[in-house]
Amino acid sequence: MAGEVRELKVDLGERSYPIYIGTGLLDGIGERFLERRFPVKSPIMLVTDESVADLYADRLEASFAAAGYKVTTAVVPSGEATKSLEMLDELIGVALQGGLDRKSTVVALGGGVIGDLAGFVAATYMRGVRFVQVPTTILAHDSSVGGKVAVNHSLAKNIIGAFYQPEFVLYDLDTLASLPIREVRAGLSEVIKHGLIWNADFVKWCDDNADRLLGLDPEALGYALYEGCKVKATVVSQDERENDLRAILNLGHTIGHALEAVAGYGELVHGEAIAIGMVGSARLAARFGYSPDIAETTEAIFRKFGLPVRIPHEINTDEVMSAMLHDKKFQEGQMVFVVPTAIGTVEIRNDVPVSWVREIVDGLREGK
Amino acid sequence: MAGEVRELKVDLGERSYPIYIGTGLLDGIGERFLERRFPVKSPIMLVTDESVADLYADRLEASFAAAGYKVTTAVVPSGEATKSLEMLDELIGVALQGGLDRKSTVVALGGGVIGDLAGFVAATYMRGVRFVQVPTTILAHDSSVGGKVAVNHSLAKNIIGAFYQPEFVLYDLDTLASLPIREVRAGLSEVIKHGLIWNADFVKWCDDNADRLLGLDPEALGYALYEGCKVKATVVSQDERENDLRAILNLGHTIGHALEAVAGYGELVHGEAIAIGMVGSARLAARFGYSPDIAETTEAIFRKFGLPVRIPHEINTDEVMSAMLHDKKFQEGQMVFVVPTAIGTVEIRNDVPVSWVREIVDGLREGK
Repeated sequence: MAGEVRELKVDLGERSYPIYIGTGLLDGIGERFLERRFPVKSPIMLVTDESVADLYADRLEASFAAAGYKVTTAVVPSGEATKSLEMLDELIGVALQGGLDRKSTVVALGGGVIGDLAGFVAATYMRGVRFVQVPTTILAHDSSVGGKVAVNHSLAKNIIGAFYQPEFVLYDLDTLASLPIREVRAGLSEVIKHGLIWNADFVKWCDDNADRLLGLDPEALGYALYEGCKVKATVVSQDERENDLRAILNLGHTIGHALEAVAGYGELVHGEAIAIGMVGSARLAARFGYSPDIAETTEAIFRKFGLPVRIPHEINTDEVMSAMLHDKKFQEGQMVFVVPTAIGTVEIRNDVPVSWVREIVDGLREGK
Repeated sequence: MAGEVRELKVDLGERSYPIYIGTGLLDGIGERFLERRFPVKSPIMLVTDESVADLYADRLEASFAAAGYKVTTAVVPSGEATKSLEMLDELIGVALQGGLDRKSTVVALGGGVIGDLAGFVAATYMRGVRFVQVPTTILAHDSSVGGKVAVNHSLAKNIIGAFYQPEFVLYDLDTLASLPIREVRAGLSEVIKHGLIWNADFVKWCDDNADRLLGLDPEALGYALYEGCKVKATVVSQDERENDLRAILNLGHTIGHALEAVAGYGELVHGEAIAIGMVGSARLAARFGYSPDIAETTEAIFRKFGLPVRIPHEINTDEVMSAMLHDKKFQEGQMVFVVPTAIGTVEIRNDVPVSWVREIVDGLREGK
């Protein structure tokens, strides 16, 4: 049953699009296609992964069929390795065999990996067809705003891609019920990040509503995803192609990416790694003379959500530093970091001494 | 030595760019990069093919080096097969190893194949970096305007791509001196096509100046490429993403593509196939009641340029019809064709009976 539906507009001029957040939305997707006059004669390709296909693909297929659309479903393996040029090649073949034409739509049903992959298929098939996202994870609230789509190269992640905006995003909260609790916590880490960079009241609200969010209360979750998407939409609409402002979205990511790389992808999931990274950035803020309360509040909220706030003991400081110094954000003895100046606001510093970073990474290790 | 340089602006709002046409331009490319403030710290990747690399790559490399840029050159095999996802993968690897960053430039030195491939690398590397085209064929005057870049899939040509505009196009007429005469004629076929769809005076001028053009007289060639590019730029600036008007650029292409497919790519080169196709379209015009002079004039000018105007006898009508009916331009018993209504203007007809097309294809066969 459809409950309240929140609608958020991502404002990007002629590439603007809405995000619908609510319950019971999956079964109405065919209707939405008709309302938006997506041509019924042009077949649809539904891209999803093995872990989601069995749960929801048939509902979307039924909704499309009822509305008169022909659908071809492509089920790809779950996980980051599926974001490859080989898979692009395969999906383009599926699209051709499914008869997709220039007025067709590619629908991504899944988390961030599926959104990135299917979005790149949509961006490149016949030089670009319609794209619709149906996220099934909390983390995907992040990737569903901003239009960054990509696949990986053997030498680098997300290096082959495009900025390509969807026609709309359909965020059905019912799909989140199947998420493992670890993914729930990790997804909420990015939601809280959006509060930390832009909206102190929202951080406070998350703190007050931790139990409802972790319990997947639809009303609380709908509100949190709306607010999280809104922060990202505001930032992205001011800097679609990541020239400057958009970098603030990387709060916690410099240390976080290094931890992910050193731990091996999957040992620490993304939301966990950036939670630790955000605590690090908050400690850096104190080093720059901002209030030590920022680090305390940051650490407390992540603890409350059951997220890690310390670097696992098996990871040593040298490894983390070395991973970071290979990162593009580093130049000539000083590092670039997004640093909070208070809860709810950040600045980009390009004058962070490597020695401070080492000190903070070391201090974040478990048992210190 | 640099002679007169013609400059044509392709007007696409914030994606507008200039085409420079003249002699002696290659050695000044580094200077142009500096003038346009392309960051010297960001390495350049030069993409070229085996047939062009030996002739001109060192001159571009020297010019970039003199201006202070680091350049990585990638030499790929000549020919259509090089437009593949495998080659994209390889070139992205070269770009990464060459240290290209988000402010870097990919330079295409070559004909249409290189422009399409390198353009797609530029469109997708780090979600899009700068792109500069240095065409070395006459035919490339066509592909250098309009931003269509792509690679092939095993099931279809040009099916994976983007609309991605260059920063500028540097058309050095000196590079055309190395073209085989067959390529010169075939390239001029597309130049004349631009006249046939849009500019009767220019058709007349080409007719009057056939000898100078075939002799690669720089002044005549510079003017012809300028006028050819101008027609395409005018059309593209009104319809960047090929929604309607841009289809008129396909004059002669429905029959032409079918001939290429049946003859096997390379047996008839593109410019030859579309010359025959344009004669077919002009005969179709007569069938619709337009003046039979259109077909006479069209045939006469292509003969004058040494281009084929008849279908080779080893190709039979059934094969051509069957290739065309698999083409996307066909729907429900009637075909879509660009048809001239006079020399210099065309219309798009979606009511062309298949029987008329068969009659015309049959009548175009050698010896009929």
